[in-house]
Amino acid sequence: MTSQAQDRQLLELIRQLFNEKIPFNRVLGLRIDSLDYDHPRVRFEMRPELVGNFVRGNLHGGVISAAIDVTGGLAAFLGVQKRLADEPLEAKLERFGQLGTIDLRIDYLRPGFGEWFEATGYVLRTGNKVAVTRIELHNNEDSLIAVGTGAYVVG
Amino acid sequence: MTSQAQDRQLLELIRQLFNEKIPFNRVLGLRIDSLDYDHPRVRFEMRPELVGNFVRGNLHGGVISAAIDVTGGLAAFLGVQKRLADEPLEAKLERFGQLGTIDLRIDYLRPGFGEWFEATGYVLRTGNKVAVTRIELHNNEDSLIAVGTGAYVVG
Amino acid sequence: MTSQAQDRQLLELIRQLFNEKIPFNRVLGLRIDSLDYDHPRVRFEMRPELVGNFVRGNLHGGVISAAIDVTGGLAAFLGVQKRLADEPLEAKLERFGQLGTIDLRIDYLRPGFGEWFEATGYVLRTGNKVAVTRIELHNNEDSLIAVGTGAYVVG
Amino acid sequence: MTSQAQDRQLLELIRQLFNEKIPFNRVLGLRIDSLDYDHPRVRFEMRPELVGNFVRGNLHGGVISAAIDVTGGLAAFLGVQKRLADEPLEAKLERFGQLGTIDLRIDYLRPGFGEWFEATGYVLRTGNKVAVTRIELHNNEDSLIAVGTGAYVVG
Repeated sequence: MTSQAQDRQLLELIRQLFNEKIPFNRVLGLRIDSLDYDHPRVRFEMRPELVGNFVRGNLHGGVISAAIDVTGGLAAFLGVQKRLADEPLEAKLERFGQLGTIDLRIDYLRPGFGEWFEATGYVLRTGNKVAVTRIELHNNEDSLIAVGTGAYVVG
Repeated sequence: MTSQAQDRQLLELIRQLFNEKIPFNRVLGLRIDSLDYDHPRVRFEMRPELVGNFVRGNLHGGVISAAIDVTGGLAAFLGVQKRLADEPLEAKLERFGQLGTIDLRIDYLRPGFGEWFEATGYVLRTGNKVAVTRIELHNNEDSLIAVGTGAYVVG
Repeated sequence: MTSQAQDRQLLELIRQLFNEKIPFNRVLGLRIDSLDYDHPRVRFEMRPELVGNFVRGNLHGGVISAAIDVTGGLAAFLGVQKRLADEPLEAKLERFGQLGTIDLRIDYLRPGFGEWFEATGYVLRTGNKVAVTRIELHNNEDSLIAVGTGAYVVG
Repeated sequence: MTSQAQDRQLLELIRQLFNEKIPFNRVLGLRIDSLDYDHPRVRFEMRPELVGNFVRGNLHGGVISAAIDVTGGLAAFLGVQKRLADEPLEAKLERFGQLGTIDLRIDYLRPGFGEWFEATGYVLRTGNKVAVTRIELHNNEDSLIAVGTGAYVVG
């Protein structure tokens, strides 16, 4: 299998795991929109059960933090993959299972109104043990709803 | 209505709003366990849909951050109530609706294994505009799963 | 006095206060490099007393956090000025004195090696009470040493 | 050398390094007050050059964050020592040199007024690679000035 073919296979497996196998991702309706190594994106639709403020109808803060957390984790994982291109597929997948958030800061900038939302992750630094990522959450009108910064164990 | 009776009424209304009216709190199964002014507590049961790591079966990070966020908000709200005891009930309830998280840090200390989880909030500082709270999440074996620190708009 | 002349006067006064009147800024050698409303910059030279790790000779973490904190505060202040252009000069200066950091996160990405360092602040959100800013610290080779996110009381 | 004697020697060396050899610690006047494994303490005196707000005369935020950062690092280091009691002294000292802050959150709760200040560090979790600590800064009247939470690389 060529390196490119293995890459495609890895990304397809990650996509399946993320979208289908992580129970709480399904509750939130999180779907990978792009597995670009430099800035992966995760998307979800507004749905009534994701509401926090029942008078105003905007997203619950916990939905925002969950979307930001998993997108930061994806960015951390993909950032490490770029550096470890020669590992076998199994080792790479195992790494995905070992990924863990050390800590996360979320800044809630504007109320979460919108039809759908998209979180984009950016790697600030990848090391052998720890990766640091920045995440932005926009709504469908490209308004910046929240940002996050997270540290992740990657190895 | 005496001040004590009004207090009880306020707390009963907050409990109903929190447990029944906030859609995403219901998805998570969050229930107020105590509205102690100094350290309110929120509890939820482990359920299959709250899982993040489907191999190990522990809580999704987003569930942890959501529980920590709302418990910090409760602590901020109750901390302000202590200072503003003489406001009419309607004003107090309106304040609850205006409560907003400015930012939140979460430290994920141990994997979220357990039968049920309890988050406890502590006020570090309340001002006229901003309150700062610290939150601890323990499991049913009293293991410290995660901590948080959050700043909230309260007025 | 025209509005533009008042602007220039305000910025000149801020520059003097920042560079000359804040004792610990002088200890660090912090100097305003630009008071651009959208991304102000603060600069300082490496000096032996700013070292943390005496074996390797890089910046102390406290120097990094101090530079990031004050640059975030400047960005918050200037972001609010843009919105409140019609206030008299005295009111604007008073606002500068009332500026306060609520909380700050710093991510230390790379050891602080370099001849000089520059922190740039960006406003993520300005409100009537609270502003949120992001800050980047680069060295003279444009390597990203650290980033920060801070919430500031602005009114 | 007995294990207890080695412990004392290690702590004495750490104290010397911290107080005498780290240039910016000397600028701040930071002195180790206690190397208790469970909650080390660092102390410093108010001095004119540590002031941030020259009108009110309180501590610069950067002094607060620096004191919190180094105290959190000490707590992380000592927390790891408890777990690795059997390492030779040289290995332990090398570990001290490798200690690095990944990220830090600081909450500035009250203006830094006082004659002297004391930061106390608490370990929330120690692992093989990463330790998480919480830090409190009080003034000489036992008023809580600021708190912090930090993640540190320890191995």
